[in-house]
Amino acid sequence: MRINEHAIEHIMESAYAFPTGPNEIVLRIRTAKNDFKEAFVVYESKYKIAKSRKKKKMEKKLTGRLYDWYSVTLPIKDVRLAYVFVLNDGDKDRYFSEDGLTDSYDFKLGFYNFFQFPYINESDIHKKVDWTKNAVFYQIFVDRFNIGDKEADKSYVDLKWGDRPTPKSFAGGDLKGITEKLDYIKGLGVNALYLTPIFKSVSNHKYDISDYYAVDEQFGTNEDLKELVKKAHEKGIRVVLDAVFNHCSERMSQFQDVLKKGSASKYHDWFIIDGEKPDKEKRNYEMFASCTYMPKLNTSNPEVVSFLNDIGTHYVKEYDIDGWRLDVSDEVSHSFWRFFRQAVKSVRKDCILIGENWHDASSFLRGDQYDSIMNYAFTKACLDYFAWKKISACEMAERLNDILARNTDIVNSMMFNLLDSHDTLRFFTEAGEDIDRFNGALSFLYLFPGVPCIFYGTELHTPGGYDPDCRRCMDWEGIRKGLYKDEILKVRELGKLRKKYDLANSEYRIYAENNVLCMERKVKKTVIRYLSNLSDKDVSFNGKTIKAHSYSVCIEDGRNKNEEE
Amino acid sequence: MRINEHAIEHIMESAYAFPTGPNEIVLRIRTAKNDFKEAFVVYESKYKIAKSRKKKKMEKKLTGRLYDWYSVTLPIKDVRLAYVFVLNDGDKDRYFSEDGLTDSYDFKLGFYNFFQFPYINESDIHKKVDWTKNAVFYQIFVDRFNIGDKEADKSYVDLKWGDRPTPKSFAGGDLKGITEKLDYIKGLGVNALYLTPIFKSVSNHKYDISDYYAVDEQFGTNEDLKELVKKAHEKGIRVVLDAVFNHCSERMSQFQDVLKKGSASKYHDWFIIDGEKPDKEKRNYEMFASCTYMPKLNTSNPEVVSFLNDIGTHYVKEYDIDGWRLDVSDEVSHSFWRFFRQAVKSVRKDCILIGENWHDASSFLRGDQYDSIMNYAFTKACLDYFAWKKISACEMAERLNDILARNTDIVNSMMFNLLDSHDTLRFFTEAGEDIDRFNGALSFLYLFPGVPCIFYGTELHTPGGYDPDCRRCMDWEGIRKGLYKDEILKVRELGKLRKKYDLANSEYRIYAENNVLCMERKVKKTVIRYLSNLSDKDVSFNGKTIKAHSYSVCIEDGRNKNEEE
Repeated sequence: MRINEHAIEHIMESAYAFPTGPNEIVLRIRTAKNDFKEAFVVYESKYKIAKSRKKKKMEKKLTGRLYDWYSVTLPIKDVRLAYVFVLNDGDKDRYFSEDGLTDSYDFKLGFYNFFQFPYINESDIHKKVDWTKNAVFYQIFVDRFNIGDKEADKSYVDLKWGDRPTPKSFAGGDLKGITEKLDYIKGLGVNALYLTPIFKSVSNHKYDISDYYAVDEQFGTNEDLKELVKKAHEKGIRVVLDAVFNHCSERMSQFQDVLKKGSASKYHDWFIIDGEKPDKEKRNYEMFASCTYMPKLNTSNPEVVSFLNDIGTHYVKEYDIDGWRLDVSDEVSHSFWRFFRQAVKSVRKDCILIGENWHDASSFLRGDQYDSIMNYAFTKACLDYFAWKKISACEMAERLNDILARNTDIVNSMMFNLLDSHDTLRFFTEAGEDIDRFNGALSFLYLFPGVPCIFYGTELHTPGGYDPDCRRCMDWEGIRKGLYKDEILKVRELGKLRKKYDLANSEYRIYAENNVLCMERKVKKTVIRYLSNLSDKDVSFNGKTIKAHSYSVCIEDGRNKNEEE
Repeated sequence: MRINEHAIEHIMESAYAFPTGPNEIVLRIRTAKNDFKEAFVVYESKYKIAKSRKKKKMEKKLTGRLYDWYSVTLPIKDVRLAYVFVLNDGDKDRYFSEDGLTDSYDFKLGFYNFFQFPYINESDIHKKVDWTKNAVFYQIFVDRFNIGDKEADKSYVDLKWGDRPTPKSFAGGDLKGITEKLDYIKGLGVNALYLTPIFKSVSNHKYDISDYYAVDEQFGTNEDLKELVKKAHEKGIRVVLDAVFNHCSERMSQFQDVLKKGSASKYHDWFIIDGEKPDKEKRNYEMFASCTYMPKLNTSNPEVVSFLNDIGTHYVKEYDIDGWRLDVSDEVSHSFWRFFRQAVKSVRKDCILIGENWHDASSFLRGDQYDSIMNYAFTKACLDYFAWKKISACEMAERLNDILARNTDIVNSMMFNLLDSHDTLRFFTEAGEDIDRFNGALSFLYLFPGVPCIFYGTELHTPGGYDPDCRRCMDWEGIRKGLYKDEILKVRELGKLRKKYDLANSEYRIYAENNVLCMERKVKKTVIRYLSNLSDKDVSFNGKTIKAHSYSVCIEDGRNKNEEE
């Protein structure tokens, strides 16, 4: 058989079948690339399908390295859906059901082997956080962004602003410094902030927290946080904080109690300790990576669940924050995230939850845990294509389609896309400081399905190697001197582009031809077309010559064509 | 390329990767059938894998219609696991990672594309309900099993015991009738009961419940239930009740309140009503199937969640029941089952939760919702092979392997396997009352991985068409007369066989050769081998002649061979 039956896949209640509303469901089916000419779904209420059926054509939406994914959106009245796929290879129809591929299908016996979406229950629908649709994020590593509080005791500062940071240096950035720069941030076209941790901690990164209820003194006061969120909201800027719930600092009082009292401490089971007392030498307790100063919190203990839930809801209720980025979220229990989501979303439905998973996170992204993740798979693709030139335009298109196929459209629409962060080298450095390739990637980031996030300093083409070098101080002096006019303008223009077009509700198509990477976004009659040719040759694309080493964003609204290079 | 790369699949944190304890994980990989000679996993703590690796050979455990599944169990100390597969086709090694199949693999860049099991959190482990490992279930449709209470008012009875039931007939069976027959049941080798619903309801099946806190008067009193459970436990018999939480009876007070007060009723949102009041004519509310007298309960409403949770835990706490079978569980929200599991398991860890899903139920069987399902996919396979002779031994073996591949070993070990139930025709009837084929299927049921359940009357070869005919009265008179000696003996022997060998901890292998279906269970040095030849010809299998239309169970303990035909 010419058809590769082994490639065909559909998984019920997964990224292959998910409700997008109380009366709407999206179905996908995977086949080997180019195996079929057309795909349809035959469907009806599961209590009726033996007698009558509807049929709808599916659209080939994604094409990866090995597979095509067809997709269809079904408005349904009876939300108890039975369905079977019909695949046509140009020669004949074949049926695909729970029993696999067959030449015919007996709907009378369907209750044994049709696919089904048993019932759309309201509480199982993964709802989009509406404000993310126009969001452009800006990530701030607080110690290096801006010193706002001129009165504060900054005697701990040991890094001269602008010097290269070391792993343990303090530069003095604080929350007031961010509040002071909100207009600057807004001017970049940014409307959401993600701050690395701000709670009490002895480190500059503050991922080892000893008191979750206090803003670290170096960064200011709890009042400063309230002020920052309030001012940001006034300017239409959302604020997302970093939830470090996998582990805490050894200095946290509960861990200190266990160090003193051993298994007699009521907090002994808050951690995962092999023995009486935690012992740094023996390393007899669970920790983050191999850092003895960051003991892992035991989220299988209901007391810890409750402790962390209270923190999570506290800042939403009392400080009006708009979401949490979840540190090392993949090592925290699924059961915890389920509780956490329930707790936080019941305080505020539109609070965004963004996990830090570097790998496919489908098991966390079913709508019961978080909303999206930091999209490091996208980062890696951009590194391979734009920065390292390891893969061709065709491989890039396939890779991105494969990544988009991992999750539901709902998750993809909230995906936190990034080129770099405090945990990677600066993308500008990875791209060999090649401005065209850097800008090519940046434009691509802004147009890719999901939510773009730029790391502070991106708008200045700040270079930087691995941590701590990627965490340099913002060059306010240089900005004042006008050194970065073009760079900032570029970010501003991309922000305007996102604002002007309703990208969140646009269709997308990513493919390659003649070594040209093409991403099309279609909003009603307008097509935004991103093209990139990183090869050494001018090539022809769609009857047009695309210069070597170039990218372009072209907007066609049916009448006019506007080009930006 | 000879290898069918499209067939290769591994999904993180799924039936392809699951912990079986705090320091043990099972990994599976799928390939096209016979594509590879050997499979290995290369693994290490994710914080070490760039520098050092372990390697372990995987075993080909399942072979379905299209695919092989290789499996391996890894004892791990650091429960933050990174892994990559190595597949060898006899010619060369290939690597399979998150990026697909490659000829080489760079472990230094692994953090972007190795597979990972991020952390085994205790609260995420799906724990086996220990007592299920030796369980043999007996399903009772209460109205038709036995009249125990001779003093009770049985004036509602309109079916003479032994006559053919009609949809609405009442025969008078009750809880005392079951208690009275516990020795008979125990004598069958049965050690667990599943009772269809017993709470207040006007129907004979009682799937339309109006008061979840009262045993229906026809079946006795709440005291009778307490007595039944107590007596059953004394004899080592567990009791599982039927949780009808998808819908209730229109007579339930809360629905009556809505009928009276409309949207002013505080119970309006307990149901899913399109409009002011539920209207049977307009059918403007959600219901089970198309039964207006069974309004669907809205489990997206926290009040309903709490109401049903309280019922679930009440009978575990106060009546000491051992589990719940969950009616129409696939139409109830996932979010509800997650709450329910938490609630019930926190009262009693070894309370079993068995869903009623007729289709692949992976989205409910991840350890956060129920433990297993009524295995109707197994039922269908047995119908196709034993009863209807629609499929060959080879197709049967493939089908069963495909079914076993759907879920984790943990779920499979608790799977509720059945040949028939109150919702199907009697298997004896489906098998054309052919005793050999019926016994062949019954023996197969008892030896198949998971937990066997026989429907009351199976031990008498009770025939019966679709509901209500499958719900005939037990022929106690016939039993007394000794009409069913051989039939009962058969069930008793199968019970003994299960009791004698620790099947739950045995390996299994299901395959076919020369049209002979073979299922081997290996317990230490003992091999239990089930063979079935349903064809019209004697065939050779393993150097032995297997007669046409025969099955056998053969036990090899290294020294002796015992055969049962």
